Amino acid sequence: MSKFDYASLIVDIPDYPEPGVVFKDITPMMADPQGFSAVIDELAEHFLGRGINKVVGAEARGFLVGAPVAYRLGAGFVPARKPGKLPREVLSQSYALEYGTDEIQIHKDAINPGDKVLIVDDLVATGGTSVACAQLVERAGGTIEGFAFALELAFLDPRTVIGDHFDQEIFSLVTVE
Amino acid sequence: MSKFDYASLIVDIPDYPEPGVVFKDITPMMADPQGFSAVIDELAEHFLGRGINKVVGAEARGFLVGAPVAYRLGAGFVPARKPGKLPREVLSQSYALEYGTDEIQIHKDAINPGDKVLIVDDLVATGGTSVACAQLVERAGGTIEGFAFALELAFLDPRTVIGDHFDQEIFSLVTVE
Repeated sequence: MSKFDYASLIVDIPDYPEPGVVFKDITPMMADPQGFSAVIDELAEHFLGRGINKVVGAEARGFLVGAPVAYRLGAGFVPARKPGKLPREVLSQSYALEYGTDEIQIHKDAINPGDKVLIVDDLVATGGTSVACAQLVERAGGTIEGFAFALELAFLDPRTVIGDHFDQEIFSLVTVE
Repeated sequence: MSKFDYASLIVDIPDYPEPGVVFKDITPMMADPQGFSAVIDELAEHFLGRGINKVVGAEARGFLVGAPVAYRLGAGFVPARKPGKLPREVLSQSYALEYGTDEIQIHKDAINPGDKVLIVDDLVATGGTSVACAQLVERAGGTIEGFAFALELAFLDPRTVIGDHFDQEIFSLVTVE
């Protein structure tokens, strides 16, 4: 049970970005000082004391939650970005979308062997981006310590997709069944 | 004088993204736990005690610094995004680029009259994005309390551009002359 009524600060947008999809807009939760503090505190404090020294978040909305969670944990933040956005040598990982594939990258030197890494995003839907981020971390020699999400679209079954590749804990503040 | 040797964690990338430009890559500073903590602490603590309740940062790298600064200040975070990225009613502001114009948006209800707002970005170059963000805040009824940047490219003279529109304080941790 969360300390805060997050659901009241998440706005449903019907038929966005396409007909039949209900978009979950978490920007009101971020803009609310109490809501934002509570989200970051609760996600980070769940993983305190586990030696996490890096947080990876995927652009762009993963930065919104991932960077402050990293700060709260006393960790560094590593942005995972779309191809062409990072200026130095990268590791690149493809992942499946509903139609086609996408690709995400981190700087090759951003994760070092021995790093203990938390994967953070604002929202987990299919789980594909999170799996790709975690695979990049392992390829760079880091260890995955867990996955943290403000919002989980459980009806898209991301825990099965993530669980097919990683057995670490998945922690979500708000779950939409 | 900053508490931390930030410069050692900023990497120069010659001829990126185009010939003759030296790109300043701050991702090593973000990935370093001590560096990241120091950047966020120093930017936020400079503006503590001024009643700031919202931070605005422009996508995508403005999120990396703006969101944790908001968290440290106990403020909410408002993302300023490119057109088509925010799902609800927006305010939109055009601004000049070297060639042509660009446009940035915030949700219309993200800033309320009386809000005290800090504009944050990882890097200020010409200052155009920051001015556009601050104009959006004022159009929504908020008050600008200041501008905070991890890195200032002083040779592009952003203080003149910002100062033409706003007389609030501009605070940068690292200045490149």
